[in-house]
Amino acid sequence: MPTVNAVAATSATDPLVRTTIKRRDVGPRDVLIEVSYAGICHSDIHTVRGDWGPVPYPLTVGHEIVGHVTEVGAEVTRHAVGDRVGVGCMVNSCRECENCRAGQEQYCLKGNTQTYASLDRDGTVTQGGYSTHIVVDEDFVLSVPSSIPHEAAAPLLCAGITTYSPLAHWSAGPGKKVAVVGMGGLGHMAVKIAAAMGAAVTVLSQTLGKQDDGLAFGAKHFYATSDPATFETLANTFDLIVNTVSTPIDMGAYLSLLRLDGTLVSVGAPSEPLPVQVFSLFGNRRSFAGSSIGSIAETQEMLDFCAEHGIAPEIEVIDADAINEAYERVLKSDVRYRFVIDINSLR
Amino acid sequence: MPTVNAVAATSATDPLVRTTIKRRDVGPRDVLIEVSYAGICHSDIHTVRGDWGPVPYPLTVGHEIVGHVTEVGAEVTRHAVGDRVGVGCMVNSCRECENCRAGQEQYCLKGNTQTYASLDRDGTVTQGGYSTHIVVDEDFVLSVPSSIPHEAAAPLLCAGITTYSPLAHWSAGPGKKVAVVGMGGLGHMAVKIAAAMGAAVTVLSQTLGKQDDGLAFGAKHFYATSDPATFETLANTFDLIVNTVSTPIDMGAYLSLLRLDGTLVSVGAPSEPLPVQVFSLFGNRRSFAGSSIGSIAETQEMLDFCAEHGIAPEIEVIDADAINEAYERVLKSDVRYRFVIDINSLR
Repeated sequence: MPTVNAVAATSATDPLVRTTIKRRDVGPRDVLIEVSYAGICHSDIHTVRGDWGPVPYPLTVGHEIVGHVTEVGAEVTRHAVGDRVGVGCMVNSCRECENCRAGQEQYCLKGNTQTYASLDRDGTVTQGGYSTHIVVDEDFVLSVPSSIPHEAAAPLLCAGITTYSPLAHWSAGPGKKVAVVGMGGLGHMAVKIAAAMGAAVTVLSQTLGKQDDGLAFGAKHFYATSDPATFETLANTFDLIVNTVSTPIDMGAYLSLLRLDGTLVSVGAPSEPLPVQVFSLFGNRRSFAGSSIGSIAETQEMLDFCAEHGIAPEIEVIDADAINEAYERVLKSDVRYRFVIDINSLR
Repeated sequence: MPTVNAVAATSATDPLVRTTIKRRDVGPRDVLIEVSYAGICHSDIHTVRGDWGPVPYPLTVGHEIVGHVTEVGAEVTRHAVGDRVGVGCMVNSCRECENCRAGQEQYCLKGNTQTYASLDRDGTVTQGGYSTHIVVDEDFVLSVPSSIPHEAAAPLLCAGITTYSPLAHWSAGPGKKVAVVGMGGLGHMAVKIAAAMGAAVTVLSQTLGKQDDGLAFGAKHFYATSDPATFETLANTFDLIVNTVSTPIDMGAYLSLLRLDGTLVSVGAPSEPLPVQVFSLFGNRRSFAGSSIGSIAETQEMLDFCAEHGIAPEIEVIDADAINEAYERVLKSDVRYRFVIDINSLR
């Protein structure tokens, strides 16, 4: 049981601190990864602050992880020492339920094993990527193409796949009009990916403050949702709306933007329920859907897609000592567009 | 402008009364229909009682209409004198918007012309089927196959198409598990149609009171939603849930019954919004959708499907003088499963 350097939350209110955590010995199907970079996802902050329920403190979060393989178990075939690899939001699943058998382990009916704060098969609590090393079953380790800049690859493992999956599932592509609500960590990836898929992308952002960025990322149009005229202008327009905002939105207003058979899919969720007027779904036979990350196979597909299309997130690399400050800036939406921790600063 | 016998509502609270109404002269593309039977839809009651907004009294309702053609305009090609025909919830649409051009005039972006209480092209208010005759543009008149019993054909024009359309759109058929919530006028048609499509049908009804009927209509299973165990037993089961109930349901409970990529589609709507917890859509990538009647082409397809499969609604035929009593019984769910007015009683 190697001991490795990490950063952990000790309570919902105290700053994260440097500490050490135990990693399990490398089992026959395990891969030991020396972590290079870990992205800061808003989920990390929600989790450590207890927004989503009780937390097993001390807890190391982080589920946007890239690094290199330094050791493999005897039965490992997918990865080799020296490979550049990534780990996202889950590190295992039951592998037996109908969803796992269908290759959709992100929807494991027994609940997949999340990269942090989840009960692992050995009874320990999983610890995430704000640490120098992590041990993961090879089936949940992704190959990161070399053409993606190393530090920029990390956010693809959550922000990338969380937006790629619904865009692929609902067939964003040529001839399709796609709106992205919110242009933060997830939203800016949604814009880049949807544009690369060939869809006509519109950004719906509170203000026009990020308009230049949005157009540079590939959006064709950029509208401020603080302007009520936006909702008149864009009525009955979109085949797909990807909502990346996790604060409540006016569902009736956003649903009215969908054209025939359009879908509004949320990848972020407020903790309170959203009131939905069923009549607003009748027009245009609209749908309101949810989507949760993506499968391991789809995550690999997304990484290969990003490599092929030269897509990477916009990042700001920080040292481990700047995590608490970065959290405050994320909460103020003061980041363009994703913080990535240089894990070398933890060694 | 022929004057014809009809039944009309004069206020939200007074009983419906016998009266006469004007029909327009038969235009070049019009069909004059001598009405034989008109179904009583819950929408008729909601409308005349003002539940859905202001009402242009006096108003004749009824949008489940069958009869025979007695006169056609000079340019009519689709129908001939003597044909058995039907009229449903709409009698025209803009024919120019993208949905009309796509043959989905039920989703006309300018709002289709409803069979009653709608502003017609000539500036008059449309009057429905509780009357001896109606004049309708031929494009909105359906051919009713002779193998469907005349009186039983009427409810197909609303209850039939409203359930057939989402079942067809979301591909109910062999290998698919479909639940029908509520087994009233719409629900019992949904069960018959889904079973005929080859889906495995489960009825979710408040009690087991209609179980024998449900199984006779083709359902494989019948569960009481008043029993909390139902929701545990059926978790993650259905590809499609057709909700025919227009009172609020516990969305979280019903969404939890959907399996991977399942959809809960509502064809009835409460006037108040339903609270939807977005997290309940994340699991299994669930969707919540709405569906409104069906296109004219699809309505014809439904009628032909019902003829081919020997499907007809269960009805109770009444005279026009019994409409007010029938309304009270519909409100108490005391009908198995649809009232149909014998319009001969109005002559």
